[in-house]
Amino acid sequence: MRLIQISICCLLSLAPLFAKAQRLNDKHVVSNITEHVLINGKAYQDLHYLCKKIGHRLSGSEQEQRTVAWLQSVLMEAGADTVWLQAVKVPKWVRGAESFSVSNGSRHIDIPMLSLGNSEGTGGKKLSGNIVLFESIEDLKNVDTATLKGKIAFLNVPFPEHFPCTFDGYSEVGSNRFSGPAIAAEKGASAFVIRSLSTGVGSYDLPHTGVTSYGNAKRKIPAIAISNKAADSLSAWIKSGKTLTGTLRSHCGMQDSVLSYNVIGEIKGQSNKIITVGAHHDSWDVGEGAHDDGAGCVQSIEVLRTFKQLGMRPRNTIRVVLFANEENGVAGGKVYADFALEHGEQHLFALESDAGGFSPRGFSMSMDEQLKELVRSWSDILFDLGVYDFSKPGGGVDINPLHKKLQTPVAGLLPDTQRYFDIHHCAQDTYETVNRRELLMGAAAMTALVYLVDKYF
Amino acid sequence: MRLIQISICCLLSLAPLFAKAQRLNDKHVVSNITEHVLINGKAYQDLHYLCKKIGHRLSGSEQEQRTVAWLQSVLMEAGADTVWLQAVKVPKWVRGAESFSVSNGSRHIDIPMLSLGNSEGTGGKKLSGNIVLFESIEDLKNVDTATLKGKIAFLNVPFPEHFPCTFDGYSEVGSNRFSGPAIAAEKGASAFVIRSLSTGVGSYDLPHTGVTSYGNAKRKIPAIAISNKAADSLSAWIKSGKTLTGTLRSHCGMQDSVLSYNVIGEIKGQSNKIITVGAHHDSWDVGEGAHDDGAGCVQSIEVLRTFKQLGMRPRNTIRVVLFANEENGVAGGKVYADFALEHGEQHLFALESDAGGFSPRGFSMSMDEQLKELVRSWSDILFDLGVYDFSKPGGGVDINPLHKKLQTPVAGLLPDTQRYFDIHHCAQDTYETVNRRELLMGAAAMTALVYLVDKYF
Repeated sequence: MRLIQISICCLLSLAPLFAKAQRLNDKHVVSNITEHVLINGKAYQDLHYLCKKIGHRLSGSEQEQRTVAWLQSVLMEAGADTVWLQAVKVPKWVRGAESFSVSNGSRHIDIPMLSLGNSEGTGGKKLSGNIVLFESIEDLKNVDTATLKGKIAFLNVPFPEHFPCTFDGYSEVGSNRFSGPAIAAEKGASAFVIRSLSTGVGSYDLPHTGVTSYGNAKRKIPAIAISNKAADSLSAWIKSGKTLTGTLRSHCGMQDSVLSYNVIGEIKGQSNKIITVGAHHDSWDVGEGAHDDGAGCVQSIEVLRTFKQLGMRPRNTIRVVLFANEENGVAGGKVYADFALEHGEQHLFALESDAGGFSPRGFSMSMDEQLKELVRSWSDILFDLGVYDFSKPGGGVDINPLHKKLQTPVAGLLPDTQRYFDIHHCAQDTYETVNRRELLMGAAAMTALVYLVDKYF
Repeated sequence: MRLIQISICCLLSLAPLFAKAQRLNDKHVVSNITEHVLINGKAYQDLHYLCKKIGHRLSGSEQEQRTVAWLQSVLMEAGADTVWLQAVKVPKWVRGAESFSVSNGSRHIDIPMLSLGNSEGTGGKKLSGNIVLFESIEDLKNVDTATLKGKIAFLNVPFPEHFPCTFDGYSEVGSNRFSGPAIAAEKGASAFVIRSLSTGVGSYDLPHTGVTSYGNAKRKIPAIAISNKAADSLSAWIKSGKTLTGTLRSHCGMQDSVLSYNVIGEIKGQSNKIITVGAHHDSWDVGEGAHDDGAGCVQSIEVLRTFKQLGMRPRNTIRVVLFANEENGVAGGKVYADFALEHGEQHLFALESDAGGFSPRGFSMSMDEQLKELVRSWSDILFDLGVYDFSKPGGGVDINPLHKKLQTPVAGLLPDTQRYFDIHHCAQDTYETVNRRELLMGAAAMTALVYLVDKYF
């Protein structure tokens, strides 16, 4: 009996030493991961292919089909044990030629524009009307129908720049783009023009698209975005008392849904539990979808590649999922969660990268407090990767269905946010705006988190 | 007596409440500073002027003179109580036309190059010699003089990419550029070619200059940098057994020293102690000196402007110092410290921004442990600014003389480091590579730190 007591005492006194050794070992592994990814990572080369050989890839487009095929091959090359496709019915919205011009009777100016995603067009016909300026969504909601009938509603709300985190600014004005067209339609407007949700200046001052929705609106009016500078000019002209007539001509609109796929590759673990690491492979039909979300795709693949190359044998299955149709439907994320629920899959954790390929700063988290505390306890291990911020909620648009339907703990890579809304959803979201080291640091941070979650969750 | 005891007890019990209220107030002030700078900050407009209307500004150049005059006017406009110039004798190194070509007898290739700063040129004559490859500075040190005599030493050491912080990589190879030419000269080489100290790829793959030194070497041989890609090609050709001849022609060299100035503007405080906030106004003679160190100059001015615009009355004098000649002499920093010592100035603290205009992550510090702990205790106040890293030593090249001679506590703004050595000392260090919000976040972080130091140091 005494021997047992002594043995227990010995073990208890060894516990802190053991924990310390474990922590040192984890730091060593994470340091190895970081060095390996910074030196051998292929995410930047992969992104080059995706951006330059395929380009942007809206749901239902020919480029999206090529993306699906290419991602399969990259996952195989990266060392996935198995790679497969999960069928997803996705909307097919097509832009076509479009133009917007403004006239005060004597002067006539063409204004660079982008129809909002899912918007109806003018069917190729000219749609003209006087432009009525609104400086808040409330002003639009409160306007007399008589004032706006047959006219073009122009909502000019600048991106709120005072937030240190740009996503907080985006959150504040995001609903203007999403709900504005339906509200304007209800008030009798013939079309809706919005100032871009953008922090861009100089060469980044471009129109930014993004999804909109008509909700239950009875009328579907064309909805477009113009750049910050164009919005400033229009606003100044209108405020100086000029009557401006806008003329819109566009061909965009929704076509029949088509088949696309979530692209999935995994390394089998010893347990039957699954860790999902993902991003979305679709993008808007401008620029190259480099930050949004090519970066997330190549980073997710890098996680798998790093596990393989470093010979790390995970306890749980590490599954990379490159989701279809995040931008205008979230069909891929929904299908993935529904399948998991239906087949009783056990999802231990899901991680998404969909906030740009910038230097990592932290992980957002939606999970119970105990797990959050566990993740926060790794902050010294993750410090050199620039990861310190665990304060924000959320995972990612594609993995949120998993969180909602299966209560899966989810996290999102949180990169530096300062530059994201310069390039988000616009022609400047190109490979050239992604920095190799920033992209790789993000991939290393994701790999480190997956390593720790696999070991301790 | 009892009443006194009760009063003391009351006061003591109020102390934590008072501290909490103070902390809330400080958070409020820092939040105000951040919002004000993000919305009203003029640093980005100032940087545009400096980069586009003046351009690069090497010590002794005409552009440097214009910079001195312009900085005075900006400091006045920003609201400085007094603005003055401190005379500094600076070296004048001039580049002139230069070219480098490589031939294997049949093929002949021009290679983009930059002479290293302070290097001698060829006096406009052709200097030709076989190229001898070295893959470490040790190999160069150990080579037989007979092997290298009359030949061109080519040192091809890649930038160490495995460090999460790029300054750690730079530290490891920096001495190659600084001391390499003297070592090669001692071994009889006729010229020295170095692979750039650069993380740049793609359009950022350019030659990067930077200061070198002949030390006490008896011979001064021309020293140049070539890009990563050019270095890879040269190395591969030589390793494949080809004998390569290099031909260099350049006009660079040192001229007589000239007069320049530290540009100084301050807000008088109630005490006679001084807080220095600074950066250097000179730059290399390529690109526009945007990150290095135009960013630091306009951020330092923004600190003063913000104090003025928000009506913050500092206890100590806030003095903005835009130093002359950091790049090839540190003459400005030395003169500033010598003057301070000679005149018995009391320097409470000095802060420098000279690591690029990227998103802030922390402050490096050289000061006693108690003060470091005080600064670290503000981490929750600075968290929203992205400031969390207080782990690194150092202040800045220009304020280090102050630290050494007067034991002034010093700190340096620590921005994200991933992109710095893509653009450092090369033609791509332009306004376009600086992001408005990142620059302003750095300025806000500096202002916040100065506010806290002024209150609590």
